[in-house]
Amino acid sequence: MTPELTAIDHIGIAVADLEAAIDHYRDDLGLVVSHRERVESQGVDEVMLTLGGSAIQLLGALGADTPVGRFLASRGPGLHHVAYRVDDLTMTLEELRTRKVRLIDEVPRPGSLGTSIAFLHPKATGGVLVELVQHPATPR
Amino acid sequence: MTPELTAIDHIGIAVADLEAAIDHYRDDLGLVVSHRERVESQGVDEVMLTLGGSAIQLLGALGADTPVGRFLASRGPGLHHVAYRVDDLTMTLEELRTRKVRLIDEVPRPGSLGTSIAFLHPKATGGVLVELVQHPATPR
Repeated sequence: MTPELTAIDHIGIAVADLEAAIDHYRDDLGLVVSHRERVESQGVDEVMLTLGGSAIQLLGALGADTPVGRFLASRGPGLHHVAYRVDDLTMTLEELRTRKVRLIDEVPRPGSLGTSIAFLHPKATGGVLVELVQHPATPR
Repeated sequence: MTPELTAIDHIGIAVADLEAAIDHYRDDLGLVVSHRERVESQGVDEVMLTLGGSAIQLLGALGADTPVGRFLASRGPGLHHVAYRVDDLTMTLEELRTRKVRLIDEVPRPGSLGTSIAFLHPKATGGVLVELVQHPATPR
């Protein structure tokens, strides 16, 4: 068994000015904000804009000494991470462990909107920060 | 009218070792290579791996003095660009021009697999290199 990624869930983009970025994605590119959330534990303001079956996630730092704040200081604004959707995150993490893929999160943790998430280590993925996302089950 | 992006077409990822990257995406993440092409004019080997309605595009440099080679030297391997799918690239570029969005390509140019592509300038998009992709028309 290999992990079954089903889609690009979202692309995370670190922005220096969140309101200006929202204006750009809405007015220049025609995208629609579907969700906005302050995640104090991560030091970030998240704005999701849906696009097909995926989304763009704008990330504004709540301060310089936060993960996104440090990213902005060292690399500047731009592509921050890519998130892949999976059906069963616990099983996926187990399969990655058997493949010796280095993980940041050994077990799923809560994300926004009822999701479970886990990050892989960029050293395991060619310098790309990879997030895995399991969405809450929807009634059939 | 605003441009109508219909999907994340692909995410471009600059890799230092293309064969190792293919092994990682196939063996660790379970993705399947759908296309491979050397684009001499861009100085790049491209490998596409489909994922849902989108794709991951691995980019290996054909030399140090190529766009991807310079990216690898200055930033290291990682996320390189995001490509959005549009239905009518000529019209989209026209709409972006009326919005004073800075473009790298003023008119569509040929991409791989019969696509037409154009790049926006990262200064216009918060540090993100954005590509627009129009796929060839398919018979209905």
